[in-house]
Amino acid sequence: MQLSIAEATDLAIRALTRAGIKQDAAALVAAHLVDANLCGHEFSSLPRVLAIVEEFRKKAPPGPIRVVRENACSAVIDGGDNVAYVVSITAIDKAVDICRKNGVAVVGANNTWFSGRLAYYVERAARQGYVAMHTTNTTARVAPYGGIDRLMGTNPLAIAFPSDDDPLIIDIGTSATTWGDVALARTKGEPLAEGVAVDPRGNPTVDPAAALEGAFLPWGGHRGSGLSLAIQLLGILVGSAPVIDDVSNYGLFFLVIDPDILMPAAQYKARVSELRRTIAANRPMPGMPRVRVPGDGSLQRRKERLAAGVVNLDERVYERIRELCGER
Amino acid sequence: MQLSIAEATDLAIRALTRAGIKQDAAALVAAHLVDANLCGHEFSSLPRVLAIVEEFRKKAPPGPIRVVRENACSAVIDGGDNVAYVVSITAIDKAVDICRKNGVAVVGANNTWFSGRLAYYVERAARQGYVAMHTTNTTARVAPYGGIDRLMGTNPLAIAFPSDDDPLIIDIGTSATTWGDVALARTKGEPLAEGVAVDPRGNPTVDPAAALEGAFLPWGGHRGSGLSLAIQLLGILVGSAPVIDDVSNYGLFFLVIDPDILMPAAQYKARVSELRRTIAANRPMPGMPRVRVPGDGSLQRRKERLAAGVVNLDERVYERIRELCGER
Repeated sequence: MQLSIAEATDLAIRALTRAGIKQDAAALVAAHLVDANLCGHEFSSLPRVLAIVEEFRKKAPPGPIRVVRENACSAVIDGGDNVAYVVSITAIDKAVDICRKNGVAVVGANNTWFSGRLAYYVERAARQGYVAMHTTNTTARVAPYGGIDRLMGTNPLAIAFPSDDDPLIIDIGTSATTWGDVALARTKGEPLAEGVAVDPRGNPTVDPAAALEGAFLPWGGHRGSGLSLAIQLLGILVGSAPVIDDVSNYGLFFLVIDPDILMPAAQYKARVSELRRTIAANRPMPGMPRVRVPGDGSLQRRKERLAAGVVNLDERVYERIRELCGER
Repeated sequence: MQLSIAEATDLAIRALTRAGIKQDAAALVAAHLVDANLCGHEFSSLPRVLAIVEEFRKKAPPGPIRVVRENACSAVIDGGDNVAYVVSITAIDKAVDICRKNGVAVVGANNTWFSGRLAYYVERAARQGYVAMHTTNTTARVAPYGGIDRLMGTNPLAIAFPSDDDPLIIDIGTSATTWGDVALARTKGEPLAEGVAVDPRGNPTVDPAAALEGAFLPWGGHRGSGLSLAIQLLGILVGSAPVIDDVSNYGLFFLVIDPDILMPAAQYKARVSELRRTIAANRPMPGMPRVRVPGDGSLQRRKERLAAGVVNLDERVYERIRELCGER
């Protein structure tokens, strides 16, 4: 089914506020989720309302989001156990503020959980002319390369570069599968792909329930595992627990750089645009229609769907969100 | 064959200075190459003397290494077309200086080439208590995911974290193979692994010469390609050409962070050590003897070989270096 953008946004806000999330926080979450839908990431979109409400209800009411440590080029934010969709906006905006003054910002946030698409936050900074890198460690689900005990989160990394056109945005996870994919497979009663998870005894499994009890495998062998570990260590640096056993205390790391401190910003943006064109002009491999620039598919879908003004939604998800709103 | 550490260092310095590299620069290069050997990276070690001299002789004499742009938390260094083994030391030391004062440093260096093991530079900062990240883009040899035209370099990434023990060091490349491996295969007349390179027409190849004419493939599919592209864009940010056609104008990016700006440094180091122990205690997969902590193998080999005091060297490489010294 389809909703208008305004209807979808309103639906998400009603469900979140009825669960006890404050209006301004709910509006930030809803904007993120609807944007994910427009960008074509439907599973990271409105279905997340259900997961956020479920987690929120298990928790004590959140406290304020506060800057607890600050230097010329850095800050640490206590997220007050608010959902990271909200805390990350505070953090990236703080980083942009610091960067505007001093050219570089390292901002961390802790005491927070669930953060959505990391691309969303780095794009926000890149649209203001900054290079932005963002990582987060999450609930321990991923074993290190060669092991079977879960230790790291699915630990995504995003980095965005301003250009003369849209920002060029790279957003990757570091696990062979994601919590979202495994949860979806469990709901649908479908098996996982081979080679992405082990059960609690360390045997390979395609059973989603066994994978959730056991461990996901890292993406990309020892290199991907190393990258995941680096993201874990950056999370710890900003106050995360070394290993996160529940849905709390993620460590969000943000680096924002004003290109102007390194080279003339206009020249940099032109070069990013030039590289984007060079990638798009790369001869494709046999069987590939063309070479894709990372992130550009999402940006293109957003343009098309914004023009159409509609959000795609699974009817069952719609009904479940309406239940949360007390409308059924 | 084996040399003492002093003999190997002296041999490298003699060959480099005889080619025209200044004594202090040659000493920095030799220290790096001998250390690579001790850490077990023999191909990145003394054989590199040959490649460095070959490139150096093609070039005009290098200029001075100069800081050409500086802010409170950042600097840009013009490498003067000196070899990056030397420029990177200037850059990481500058970053540590800035970081000591202001807690965060972003330092870039350009107009330089060939930089060795990135782990070497980030370890240098981590031993002084700092978290350090370093990337470099290099000569275009790698096609973006789905393409066949070379665009990115082999673009490595290293990041080091201080701990109560040795730093925890992650150092990964982002290409399916390396220039060093392909050059070695060509020298030995051996084929490449399947799936790591294409010839100039984009057909898969295991012929090293064809791979050097064509393109290497990125490691890790679209995610590894995205990471490589991010490293390319950070290189451009510090003054590299968008695409590097020869052995020059690499873009070296350094981020150094004092943990103390984010949390008490002693607590951070203790947590890094704790995570290292947790990794080492992870139950191994069937068939794996144990789970390895990234970088710890190199550190362990260095300790053993330093104690033994010897450097391992291929006799043919030794003879070729002695030729460069005019000793045969």
